Amino acid sequence: MVSEAQDQRRGRRPGARDTRRAARSRSAVPRVPYITRRIPIYEVLSDEGLEVIEHNAETILQEIGIEFRDDAEALELWRKAGADVEGSRVRFPRGMCRHLIQATAPREFTQHARNPERSVRIGGDHTVFAPAYGPPFVRNLDEGRRYASIEDFRNFVKLAYLSPYLHHSGGTVCEPVDLPVNKRHFDMVYSHIKYSDKPFMGSVTAAERAQDSVDMAKLVFGEAFVDNNTVVVSLINANSPMVFDGTMLGAAKVYARHNQAMLVSPFILAGAMSPVTVAGTCAQLFAEAQAGMAFTQLVRPGAPVVFGTFGSSISMQSGAPTFGTPEPALVLYTAAALARRLGVPFRSGGSLCGSKIPDAQAAFESAQTLLPTVLAGVNFVLHTAGWLEGGLCMGYEKFVMDADQAGMMHQLLRGVDLSENGQGMDAIREVGPGQHFLGCTHTRANFETAFYRSSIADNNSFEQWQAEGSLDAAHRAHKVWKRMLAEYEAPLLDPGIDEALQEFITKRKASFPDASH
Amino acid sequence: MVSEAQDQRRGRRPGARDTRRAARSRSAVPRVPYITRRIPIYEVLSDEGLEVIEHNAETILQEIGIEFRDDAEALELWRKAGADVEGSRVRFPRGMCRHLIQATAPREFTQHARNPERSVRIGGDHTVFAPAYGPPFVRNLDEGRRYASIEDFRNFVKLAYLSPYLHHSGGTVCEPVDLPVNKRHFDMVYSHIKYSDKPFMGSVTAAERAQDSVDMAKLVFGEAFVDNNTVVVSLINANSPMVFDGTMLGAAKVYARHNQAMLVSPFILAGAMSPVTVAGTCAQLFAEAQAGMAFTQLVRPGAPVVFGTFGSSISMQSGAPTFGTPEPALVLYTAAALARRLGVPFRSGGSLCGSKIPDAQAAFESAQTLLPTVLAGVNFVLHTAGWLEGGLCMGYEKFVMDADQAGMMHQLLRGVDLSENGQGMDAIREVGPGQHFLGCTHTRANFETAFYRSSIADNNSFEQWQAEGSLDAAHRAHKVWKRMLAEYEAPLLDPGIDEALQEFITKRKASFPDASH
Repeated sequence: MVSEAQDQRRGRRPGARDTRRAARSRSAVPRVPYITRRIPIYEVLSDEGLEVIEHNAETILQEIGIEFRDDAEALELWRKAGADVEGSRVRFPRGMCRHLIQATAPREFTQHARNPERSVRIGGDHTVFAPAYGPPFVRNLDEGRRYASIEDFRNFVKLAYLSPYLHHSGGTVCEPVDLPVNKRHFDMVYSHIKYSDKPFMGSVTAAERAQDSVDMAKLVFGEAFVDNNTVVVSLINANSPMVFDGTMLGAAKVYARHNQAMLVSPFILAGAMSPVTVAGTCAQLFAEAQAGMAFTQLVRPGAPVVFGTFGSSISMQSGAPTFGTPEPALVLYTAAALARRLGVPFRSGGSLCGSKIPDAQAAFESAQTLLPTVLAGVNFVLHTAGWLEGGLCMGYEKFVMDADQAGMMHQLLRGVDLSENGQGMDAIREVGPGQHFLGCTHTRANFETAFYRSSIADNNSFEQWQAEGSLDAAHRAHKVWKRMLAEYEAPLLDPGIDEALQEFITKRKASFPDASH
Repeated sequence: MVSEAQDQRRGRRPGARDTRRAARSRSAVPRVPYITRRIPIYEVLSDEGLEVIEHNAETILQEIGIEFRDDAEALELWRKAGADVEGSRVRFPRGMCRHLIQATAPREFTQHARNPERSVRIGGDHTVFAPAYGPPFVRNLDEGRRYASIEDFRNFVKLAYLSPYLHHSGGTVCEPVDLPVNKRHFDMVYSHIKYSDKPFMGSVTAAERAQDSVDMAKLVFGEAFVDNNTVVVSLINANSPMVFDGTMLGAAKVYARHNQAMLVSPFILAGAMSPVTVAGTCAQLFAEAQAGMAFTQLVRPGAPVVFGTFGSSISMQSGAPTFGTPEPALVLYTAAALARRLGVPFRSGGSLCGSKIPDAQAAFESAQTLLPTVLAGVNFVLHTAGWLEGGLCMGYEKFVMDADQAGMMHQLLRGVDLSENGQGMDAIREVGPGQHFLGCTHTRANFETAFYRSSIADNNSFEQWQAEGSLDAAHRAHKVWKRMLAEYEAPLLDPGIDEALQEFITKRKASFPDASH
């Protein structure tokens, strides 16, 4: 994984060391800036079924409405647009939100990276993998579990940069809790820019932090470019059920006004924040997401917006969140279909799990989330790598395991090659009954690209595996991320831009006191 | 899992202990003898793509042909049917095998269990889960890895009997290597009958052992019933590429003549036994399977036959088999579609992995096999539970982990409930913005059946998990199978039948010397 990333660093010619590494890690999967799927979408519901959910979502928007809290400007925008505003409760004529979205929101858009080769297309047949978002803790086999720091943050930015199967640097890859709450966004955004050249996410914890994110992006991309292009994607969560709070609305307004993209995502643990049923949960989250997306179009028509959802369930015994179970997969397939019918990109899924450690539970649950994610046609996959413990913890070993699985998804989404070479009839004719294909012409011609090659799996004999220390997957993953970080070299960053960013941060940090909120 | 199985034991009334256990382990998934899917099949190829593969399979059958080795009777049957026989090589006019199959093989059929409530329907929209087949080793956390014994065999029969999510007792759930090779089939078939009342598989390692399996089934079901109904399903593997050997043909003839079902399964590790490409592998395995299935119809028109395939890949570096990678999933989806177009039931998939232990590798690979298995619409799923180490080892912990995942697949295949209760609009109206759903009427009404409840996953807080010993999933699974075996009680078996079986076995065992082949 390491060497392919490094070969593509701008401005550096590959040397002998790179060539050796490239030979060692050559993979069947060509490196791409994002995936363009070649296999069909999986649908669980018929059009008639989806219409039932759409109808119910409209009923929720019309009868119950959505709260837009602590934001008088938002309520005024809704009033002017013709919604029924009563206190902070906004009720919408049937079809209003849908029409607002369909009138101006783009069906798909490009998020530009500072390295143009890493720009991603969000929407349509495309899938973009980004790391997990938000964990205050980290875990690795050396140290166990502890609070995350800015050094961990940089490490995960580096790991995502080095992975050929993650297309995006993500946002809060972990919470750098060693920095003041009201200033850590500077270091987070700077780290994404400095230690990676992949696209990244902005801060949403306050309107002014969103503004800082945009201002830093302007230093990198230029002011005019930012106003006309998407260079930051940000996560605008609903407070389900049926509430958007002032913080999120404040951040959304900043990003929308600057034409930057938003993932409007109801965060739902079904049974607590929505009904215990799949169809009920889908109707509610679709209502919430439509209200949020329509709001962004009131702020700036045409601002890129993504229908997002984070959906899982709770244990009805303990109330604890659960992951990788069948019901959230059904929600995911359904919501993805609703997004396609609405005509906006869709964000969901990832490699979610409830396990505290990268064990079989973590893997079962992650796979049972990630495979539905890609089969459903999710366009932006937050939480692709690193997620442990319901999102409370970012795992170093889990990160590289998940990235390996993301690599497999690349291969899956390429589908079946029906070219003459893919049909392989010459091989069958050459080999014939009772012989083996190992040395035949076709096998030798396709040797290097045949079959995805895992960086984590051990497929050796039991005896060889035992001789090598009887390691489990987590211990092999441990070696992988250690080696990646040891071999990491930063992508070039224009020294003038770097200086401007540092100057901006120093000035801004000095202009207000540290705070823990 | 235990108590539901026990509640349903025939001839025993549930007592207080059962009721307590039932309350403790009540699940969202109703116990069913087999699954009838309510969600669509996933297809990776269009009809045009499938036609290319079908065309190539016909070309293989016509030009290259299939070897039927060491069986003059088989060659004579083919000659009479109009095939071109040259030595042991049989070449088929285009469409011949397809027509033979479509003329007489049933599209679906019932395999009867000795408990009629456990009979399974194989084919159509149905899915039957059976344990892993064939491992000479077992592994558990107490003992590590060692050779399997007849006691292990009995244990896995008991665990499959107790699991509400396995519908079938399977066949060689592990190899009882403590018994003579030429007599262990008596003990295996007897164990399936004695310790379970679910349907089971027969021996295929020699024609006379197949006959013993049928004869024992006759003692249980009666001779006339067996001739008119399927009570044994057996695994007839092709020796890919393009060979059926005398042993398998001998067993196939016995089962076909007795109207018992066969899973005709090319066993393919792509790159070694087939081309390194998905389309090439599919054409070859489809040719092999068609030749084998058509042969069963020559022996006895109308004998139930299943298109089976065991497909995985090899590491192109080491030659070792690999599992849970994307290419075998594409083969699986494609072969399942070919089976539907041909009009026969399909067997493939399972919970395959290359890992030696039930770690994250095992879980990732198993999930990446099992989910494609159910989405592809596989009808008979051998290797659903227990599989480790490429099939060399049967894992006790892995077995209960896999059974738990099989439970999740039950829930997934039930699809989205669009009833009024499923839509949950009353709940959304009752709760409203900013509140929670935990105590609302709808949640209370659906409390017990909402969401699949895993028997293995730990969803508690980090602190609670730590206080309980920081166990990984394997250690929780260890407790589950230990408890299941401790609480096991055998289903009733008519003492007359039991005696007849034992008498038959004693006589047959005494009639020829032990042998290690």
